Amino acid sequence: MIAKLTPAERSELLPTLPEWAVDEGRDGITRKFAFADFVEAFGFMTRVALLAEKADHHPEWSNLYNRVEILLTTHDAGGLSRRDVDLARAIDALI
Amino acid sequence: MIAKLTPAERSELLPTLPEWAVDEGRDGITRKFAFADFVEAFGFMTRVALLAEKADHHPEWSNLYNRVEILLTTHDAGGLSRRDVDLARAIDALI
Repeated sequence: MIAKLTPAERSELLPTLPEWAVDEGRDGITRKFAFADFVEAFGFMTRVALLAEKADHHPEWSNLYNRVEILLTTHDAGGLSRRDVDLARAIDALI
Repeated sequence: MIAKLTPAERSELLPTLPEWAVDEGRDGITRKFAFADFVEAFGFMTRVALLAEKADHHPEWSNLYNRVEILLTTHDAGGLSRRDVDLARAIDALI
């Protein structure tokens, strides 16, 4: 069972992900990406898909042409967990 | 310049896409897909991405684990066009 981040953990970890915004309603974190075109955007999505499958932790995400929006939350925890932070960090490392 | 479908064309073509629902607000068509798991869903998305890039006509779409939702509309036409019908038909042929 994955635990939600405690307030102390959030205060420690979220500042390490400055590109991600907290979505309070979903208790998750979101980031929007823009690329040169669809091929670049979908190439990025493919890399994220492989990371996500390997981590067994999957994003909620959408794409329109060169834009990708990702929301990370942990359904099993009912909100933001360490898994989200780890996947966000791995996604950031792709950019 | 791509033209929107005329009412007569819509009446002729939309019944040929029974799996797709009209989104009146967006003047597009949508379909929801469910797969066994994320790998199946993203595999499908990859096939759609290749079709879309080849047609130079791209979906608005989202994914959460095994689910994929696709909206097709033609921004250049300000609504539903033949391109959407053709891409929907090509997507249906993947399933």
